[in-house]
Amino acid sequence: MKLIDGKATANQIREEIAEEVKEIVASGKRAPHLAAVLVGEDGGSITYVNAKISDCKQIGFRSTLIKKDADITEDELLAVVDELNQQDDLDGFIVQLPLPKHINEEKIINAIRADKDVDGFHPENFGRMALGMPTMIPATPLGITELIRRYGIETSGKHCVVIGRSNIVGLPASILMGQNTDTGNATVTLTHSRTQNLKEICLSADIIIAAIGKPGFVKEDMVKEGAVVIDVGTTRVKDATRKSGFRLRGDVDFDAVSPKCSYITPVPGGVGPMTRAGLLQNLMVAYRQKFL
Amino acid sequence: MKLIDGKATANQIREEIAEEVKEIVASGKRAPHLAAVLVGEDGGSITYVNAKISDCKQIGFRSTLIKKDADITEDELLAVVDELNQQDDLDGFIVQLPLPKHINEEKIINAIRADKDVDGFHPENFGRMALGMPTMIPATPLGITELIRRYGIETSGKHCVVIGRSNIVGLPASILMGQNTDTGNATVTLTHSRTQNLKEICLSADIIIAAIGKPGFVKEDMVKEGAVVIDVGTTRVKDATRKSGFRLRGDVDFDAVSPKCSYITPVPGGVGPMTRAGLLQNLMVAYRQKFL
Repeated sequence: MKLIDGKATANQIREEIAEEVKEIVASGKRAPHLAAVLVGEDGGSITYVNAKISDCKQIGFRSTLIKKDADITEDELLAVVDELNQQDDLDGFIVQLPLPKHINEEKIINAIRADKDVDGFHPENFGRMALGMPTMIPATPLGITELIRRYGIETSGKHCVVIGRSNIVGLPASILMGQNTDTGNATVTLTHSRTQNLKEICLSADIIIAAIGKPGFVKEDMVKEGAVVIDVGTTRVKDATRKSGFRLRGDVDFDAVSPKCSYITPVPGGVGPMTRAGLLQNLMVAYRQKFL
Repeated sequence: MKLIDGKATANQIREEIAEEVKEIVASGKRAPHLAAVLVGEDGGSITYVNAKISDCKQIGFRSTLIKKDADITEDELLAVVDELNQQDDLDGFIVQLPLPKHINEEKIINAIRADKDVDGFHPENFGRMALGMPTMIPATPLGITELIRRYGIETSGKHCVVIGRSNIVGLPASILMGQNTDTGNATVTLTHSRTQNLKEICLSADIIIAAIGKPGFVKEDMVKEGAVVIDVGTTRVKDATRKSGFRLRGDVDFDAVSPKCSYITPVPGGVGPMTRAGLLQNLMVAYRQKFL
């Protein structure tokens, strides 16, 4: 069994981007520029956004943090998005979710211009991804692809079972794994809450991508000997022994499943750090589309 | 075994649209308007475009046929597209493929504005389809969905195997079949040229959608008793007994496979007529998005 080290791989990606940014700036061009919009005082959101801004600083991106009070109206927030859409020296931006309940998240997200949508959530970017055109790709499936590429995991002709059909993970991961690319060409089965015989389907999988948000859902008797297991789950479960009072648990029963695997991602330290790096990769795509 | 009658179903769809158009016009609004651009003198293309224009007349759409010589330049054709994009009283248009070799088809197709893209090929429409948002959907998978709906075929929790991953049929069909809708919720496996054990995978299918363009590819020993088989193939094979010199053959070995099926589409008269009707349904979607 080989543990896939998402933290080390994400560090490597950041170093590669930092190198590229250094060359860009040395050539006289301006650095790539990311903005993040943070609404309200949600603890998780503040942590995530700060991490993103800190990543930018580390690799030489310019970054802008825009904080708005939780009582901002939808129209006011749309005006912020519109301003960022127009801002010429800004390559991409995110609006950190969740938003306060009085704001329609879909409306805000869809207002972000496709060429600045570094989350890859815009329908045009999603369509380009699905059709195999160059574009920004949702960060989690992008991170999974990078792990597969960098660990040299064979996918062509393999049976890949994706558990969970969310628009930001399961569905795009299933599409990418089936495409005619170096990290694709798998025979992909997309499973979900209505799937019957999930256990049998998983037992036939060479690669399992678990993305349902149910801690420990994938058990030892669902995984065949030698399978590759990618665990996207990151559910907070109570843990009195931790200072924070919780720990992260994946969708896979790691202790029981991992001995059977050829490769497996741990939680934390697997897909999570790669998702964070995916945003930076997408900003580079946005920047390159504009300049290079 | 029940034969799925695509011709009759397509007729029914046309009658429903004709009824809706009649009401629209009676209410004082203008009729929906489709344009078709035909480049050169390709026999197949002329037949297809004439059929589309004839459909429009039959159901009360306004239609415009724009014919251009085969030696039109790419820039000139782009200018035609741009003019149609701008034309206010035009709801949607198609550029009939294939185009002459000196013209980049992808460039032309991508120049069609998303809200007039009644083929559903524009990345933004493809993304909206994949994300479950209302939009124009590629005509063949749309036709398949309609057949499933109108024949009351159960899909929820069923295993659907799609053979072929083209951007206009296999891939969108696989996405639609897995979505949380009345005609979706299937567990979908998308197979293609790199797939191993295709026979075993097909044998586990409750629903097979064959879209590879290889006549008679799906054999009796690949289909389980009681399966639903949707045959998208329409390959011309030589047939000296026909006046035309050819006949259409599907991807399924119909004579051997059909006795095992609960439902099966014939070729011709199955998915083909539904594809033709799908264009008309998409024009109604474009019209409604604008006016209703």
